[in-house]
Amino acid sequence: MVTSPPPDYSLDTLFRVKLLLASISSSRSRSKSPAAETLTADFLGRAARYTPTDAQTFDSEAALLAWIDRQSARTTPALILCDSRGDQLSSEDLAARLGRLRDSGTQLIVLAIGPADGWSKVARGRAQLTIAFGLITLPHELARVVLAEQIYRSLTILAGHPYHSGH
Amino acid sequence: MVTSPPPDYSLDTLFRVKLLLASISSSRSRSKSPAAETLTADFLGRAARYTPTDAQTFDSEAALLAWIDRQSARTTPALILCDSRGDQLSSEDLAARLGRLRDSGTQLIVLAIGPADGWSKVARGRAQLTIAFGLITLPHELARVVLAEQIYRSLTILAGHPYHSGH
Repeated sequence: MVTSPPPDYSLDTLFRVKLLLASISSSRSRSKSPAAETLTADFLGRAARYTPTDAQTFDSEAALLAWIDRQSARTTPALILCDSRGDQLSSEDLAARLGRLRDSGTQLIVLAIGPADGWSKVARGRAQLTIAFGLITLPHELARVVLAEQIYRSLTILAGHPYHSGH
Repeated sequence: MVTSPPPDYSLDTLFRVKLLLASISSSRSRSKSPAAETLTADFLGRAARYTPTDAQTFDSEAALLAWIDRQSARTTPALILCDSRGDQLSSEDLAARLGRLRDSGTQLIVLAIGPADGWSKVARGRAQLTIAFGLITLPHELARVVLAEQIYRSLTILAGHPYHSGH
């Protein structure tokens, strides 16, 4: 009798979710600040110790949504938008939301920083969650750093690592 | 008849206020991230085009308060604390508060990022204003970058410079 190998239910496989920090930025306006790039890459590198984490820049909102559609052949990505009109979440709340998506089998979570003039109604309608980092306005590059740090912080909260409680 | 020179009521003199970004950080925990330092210095340098702007790190909250007491012989500094329990202000609101302090003759405004365990009741009692940047937790160094950017942004708002409306 031939049997197929048992499914791999190790925690690593069950809970593995890929995170993508997506930015909308026209090619003209990119890479103004190497220091902001360095900080973003540093936080994402630390996040990648916990789960595969990447960054990608799209020329337009439409390009991001088309990319998500193409992924949907294999998996249904969850989309989280950063938007000043979004819900304010604490870092613990964001970690809990990411944890619930991961635990419900989501394989790809896209966390996206919007274009300068904000997200369209179409994009907001596609999002599982729209979050705001307070009432202040941040420049695009600094919002990316903050989001990268919150991604890393969320993963340490979910893992019980002391990074979060130490700050 | 000898007359003293007329007072200088040029805008430059009337509205000149010095800004200080103060941080509480023990010497052990300083300078972890050169990229965050670079970003902070960049925003403060841009702010200094509008009004004298500096940064200073104090070993403890007590050291900051003692320093403020020493300034009080010459001027009464205004103290603005960043604290997660503070009021959430928009960037426009922060600019308006800084503008009112400046216009009422304040010569020195200290904007301070707290120690890891937060400000004491004594410090909060000394502050004109306690502000929070949303519900998320940020590491000390990133909170400094955000505060430096908000200082620069406030000055551009007060000056009518398009930086703020462009983001």
